[in-house]
Amino acid sequence: MTGKGERLLIAALGGVNEVGKNMYMLQHGDDILVIDCGSKFPDESLLGIDLIIPDIAYLLNNRDKVRALIVTHGHEDHIGGIPYLLKQLPMPVYASRLTLGLIEIKLKEHGLLRETSLNRIDSDSQLELGSVKVSFFNTNHSIPDCLGVVFDTPEGTVVHTGDFKFDMTPVNKQYPDIHKMAEIGRRGVRILLSESTNAERPGFTPSERIVGAHLEEAFVKAKRRVFVSTFASNVSRLQQVVDAAARTGRRLALLGRSMVNVVEVARELGYLDIPEGMLADPAEAANLPPEQVAVLCTGSQGEPMAALSRLASSNHRLIEIQAGDTVIIAANPIPGNERNVSRIVDNLYILGAEVVYGSRSELHVSGHGSQEELKLMLTLMKPDYFIPIHGEYRMLHHHRQLAEAVGVESDRIFLLGNGDVVESSGGVVRQAGRIPAGQILVDGLGIGDIGNIVLRDRRQLSADGILITVITISKEDGKILSDPDTISRGFVYVRDSEGLIREVNRLVTDTARRMLEENASQWNVMKQTLKDALGQFLYEKTKRRPMILPIIIEV
Amino acid sequence: MTGKGERLLIAALGGVNEVGKNMYMLQHGDDILVIDCGSKFPDESLLGIDLIIPDIAYLLNNRDKVRALIVTHGHEDHIGGIPYLLKQLPMPVYASRLTLGLIEIKLKEHGLLRETSLNRIDSDSQLELGSVKVSFFNTNHSIPDCLGVVFDTPEGTVVHTGDFKFDMTPVNKQYPDIHKMAEIGRRGVRILLSESTNAERPGFTPSERIVGAHLEEAFVKAKRRVFVSTFASNVSRLQQVVDAAARTGRRLALLGRSMVNVVEVARELGYLDIPEGMLADPAEAANLPPEQVAVLCTGSQGEPMAALSRLASSNHRLIEIQAGDTVIIAANPIPGNERNVSRIVDNLYILGAEVVYGSRSELHVSGHGSQEELKLMLTLMKPDYFIPIHGEYRMLHHHRQLAEAVGVESDRIFLLGNGDVVESSGGVVRQAGRIPAGQILVDGLGIGDIGNIVLRDRRQLSADGILITVITISKEDGKILSDPDTISRGFVYVRDSEGLIREVNRLVTDTARRMLEENASQWNVMKQTLKDALGQFLYEKTKRRPMILPIIIEV
Repeated sequence: MTGKGERLLIAALGGVNEVGKNMYMLQHGDDILVIDCGSKFPDESLLGIDLIIPDIAYLLNNRDKVRALIVTHGHEDHIGGIPYLLKQLPMPVYASRLTLGLIEIKLKEHGLLRETSLNRIDSDSQLELGSVKVSFFNTNHSIPDCLGVVFDTPEGTVVHTGDFKFDMTPVNKQYPDIHKMAEIGRRGVRILLSESTNAERPGFTPSERIVGAHLEEAFVKAKRRVFVSTFASNVSRLQQVVDAAARTGRRLALLGRSMVNVVEVARELGYLDIPEGMLADPAEAANLPPEQVAVLCTGSQGEPMAALSRLASSNHRLIEIQAGDTVIIAANPIPGNERNVSRIVDNLYILGAEVVYGSRSELHVSGHGSQEELKLMLTLMKPDYFIPIHGEYRMLHHHRQLAEAVGVESDRIFLLGNGDVVESSGGVVRQAGRIPAGQILVDGLGIGDIGNIVLRDRRQLSADGILITVITISKEDGKILSDPDTISRGFVYVRDSEGLIREVNRLVTDTARRMLEENASQWNVMKQTLKDALGQFLYEKTKRRPMILPIIIEV
Repeated sequence: MTGKGERLLIAALGGVNEVGKNMYMLQHGDDILVIDCGSKFPDESLLGIDLIIPDIAYLLNNRDKVRALIVTHGHEDHIGGIPYLLKQLPMPVYASRLTLGLIEIKLKEHGLLRETSLNRIDSDSQLELGSVKVSFFNTNHSIPDCLGVVFDTPEGTVVHTGDFKFDMTPVNKQYPDIHKMAEIGRRGVRILLSESTNAERPGFTPSERIVGAHLEEAFVKAKRRVFVSTFASNVSRLQQVVDAAARTGRRLALLGRSMVNVVEVARELGYLDIPEGMLADPAEAANLPPEQVAVLCTGSQGEPMAALSRLASSNHRLIEIQAGDTVIIAANPIPGNERNVSRIVDNLYILGAEVVYGSRSELHVSGHGSQEELKLMLTLMKPDYFIPIHGEYRMLHHHRQLAEAVGVESDRIFLLGNGDVVESSGGVVRQAGRIPAGQILVDGLGIGDIGNIVLRDRRQLSADGILITVITISKEDGKILSDPDTISRGFVYVRDSEGLIREVNRLVTDTARRMLEENASQWNVMKQTLKDALGQFLYEKTKRRPMILPIIIEV
């Protein structure tokens, strides 16, 4: 095997200290393998940003060494960044069948489909990528076709679990391959990277199968139409909705672009079994007898633009909620989304719907393993070294405690930030150094480091608005040519607003005149002085700090 | 009794279809009684707003009829609006001892203390306010001194529960007065207003007492200092913290203005028993041996400016978290606050603290009754008519279902919005008409209808920023005097930003010139044309819609 005596480097470019934008890197000598490339949705402090993806500077600086992108499964936080990655750095992609199908949809949208090398793998595949041999094992999760990855390197075996639970009664018969995992562990795992999403949760995550019985019960009880909102990517959940609809003699309409896409891909590739003639157009469904209708829709996280939210606001073009309809929200709100979901529930009740929601409804189970499953994985793999991944700090912290509890030595567990590197050289494993890592913000058509200045500006604008004052000054004699023109947006006046503006204008004129007389007429100095004077004045008067923008025009 | 044959009107001015800013109104003939006047915190869509209070237009229009403000208890969502109310419409205030103490703190801050008529009441008080007799009964909640209110009117008895649970083992020995409630119900309740906060939750809310044992356990296990973050107003919780600290030989420091205020008032009025010498300055506590220190702090909802958040970011002036300290978050995040709390937990772990948090920790119980307790109140009161209050729509909806289940007739249950009026006249009770109601936004020093325009502006500014272009035109001959001056804030450029600005300036000049030549020189028309042209141009180039502000200066 080539590359003997080379260093092995492992790092996260995204996915640690956060949930989202997963991207991991394994480098042996001159061979770099990338695992996943996901995206993340911004929280409310990142105003106007659409998407966040990992910073790939390290890969760009080492572009000749990058051999392949290996994708563990088709969720957005593992594939959402792929088009942006491949646009800058083409590389062959290895993924399972459904995962590949979902990646293809994205590449098509970005016009990259034709030029990308897509390679289908499954749990029996074996690859040789440079000095690293790669093999796989089946896991299960809230989407079919998930794989864990095994890297055989001269420095030992590294295992990356992908996302997983241990659902021993999977709806789609894709069992977690416990025997293969045990064999991998028996042969020896030097370093394990395992996902930490539910590391705070005691116990065992229930099987997807329990949802099916509750779904059917809800369908039977429903007097009129049934709307089910759930994650489009959870194909097993979709199958159970299809089954419940079939058993209650209902046709099924789909609302929401991602729902339509996933159903199409999943059905085509044989992951979703929908009886012939069952699917109906939303427009068609709107005219059927209500007890013969079921609708699968997006928006279970309360996303304002998605189908469920529009149905709740009677805003959907194709179909509307009527009194007596049943709406099932088969998902738990991800932290941050609770208020949006609550608002939708309120609106649905106002429309007279029956609403089934909340964790007590038993219409949703997590796709991630809880503490007992994480310990099971650790026990099967028996790693020498452990790197918890895919989680915010407290989740990584709890996962570390689980690893210590099953017997991994404390000083052999690494809690990394994005960019931190774990190195193995001559059998010695330690945390050593950093590579560049961070976030790239995608905004409209712009990709780039939008940077703190713009975000800070937006933040100030959003809190206190802006006040703009324009003064014109004669080029010839440096005299002020007119009264200042002062305009504000998003800035609240205290009662007497005209009076306030008059005072502002007076202050501007006096300040500017004084500076011109003192010949202190460097424009940037004058602008700064105006900003300071106005800022102080406005704060005293209103207790607000709008952005102040003095504009000086020379004519 | 005067006023026989007059109409009885009941309305909510705040508190229905929402959680917060509770304010209810009972009017018989020419006597108006106000129940509570709370405030509400804005959600993230109300940019830059500090506080929301109920719109009191109806009361101002009927100021001669307003007799009194009756306050059920001292939580912000029941007293937060009082200073703003009294500033515009002074009236005598009736409240229990602790409630009065908390109201006084607010009135002092607003300079209203001296001119307000404050009247202390308790569960034995009986008032005659115009044609209405008012009496009270003890309830319990997550603050001491809570009262329910009974209004005896010629149209029958109206009961307002205030906020309540049925904690039968209250830490502070303030029992819910079930016997008095039964007697009130036996004598006949015409209309019941009952709070709906936990109407979605099956079962019975556990007693506050269970927290004490778990707190003590956590204190005993703690090797170094213990920080407890909880709602300052939950005096029983504070008492249990004091007790746990005393039992583990710790002195107690207080962090956060509301914590210091509440402890002072509660202690002074005898609601909180702290052993002599136990309280310590934070600065003093910072120098004591760690196992002898406990700290009570604000910020359990993750509020960025409060003590807990600053401790987590190592940003507190007086004291810092050290590795091995224990931090207990004895509260569950109110929906909307989860992400802030999670971030704090992450940061505390990074600092090396032990963190006790989450619903599984059993260090928090709700102050509001669950379904069995709501049914108990309905059963005790046996009302003819029922108005669920204090909740978002789905909570009112579930409360209605509970009332139907215990036997209130469906057509005798009113789900109101703020401003909807229930009227009783000659014994006939029905929903009839509306009074003005809404929200007043408090922003800095400004109180007023900030209005949709300013908020919409801030929203646009926050998403896409602003682009300002200034052109100067000669008064004499209407010619453009200089190149446009174009500035942006919060607007992201795609790569070639100077190029974009050049194109913008060219477009502005061409458009303006063309309009001047066509003598279409009405400034507002020109501004609109410029806005449209620039808006379209920028969207094509960047897919963003910044606010566009053309400014025309005549010189």
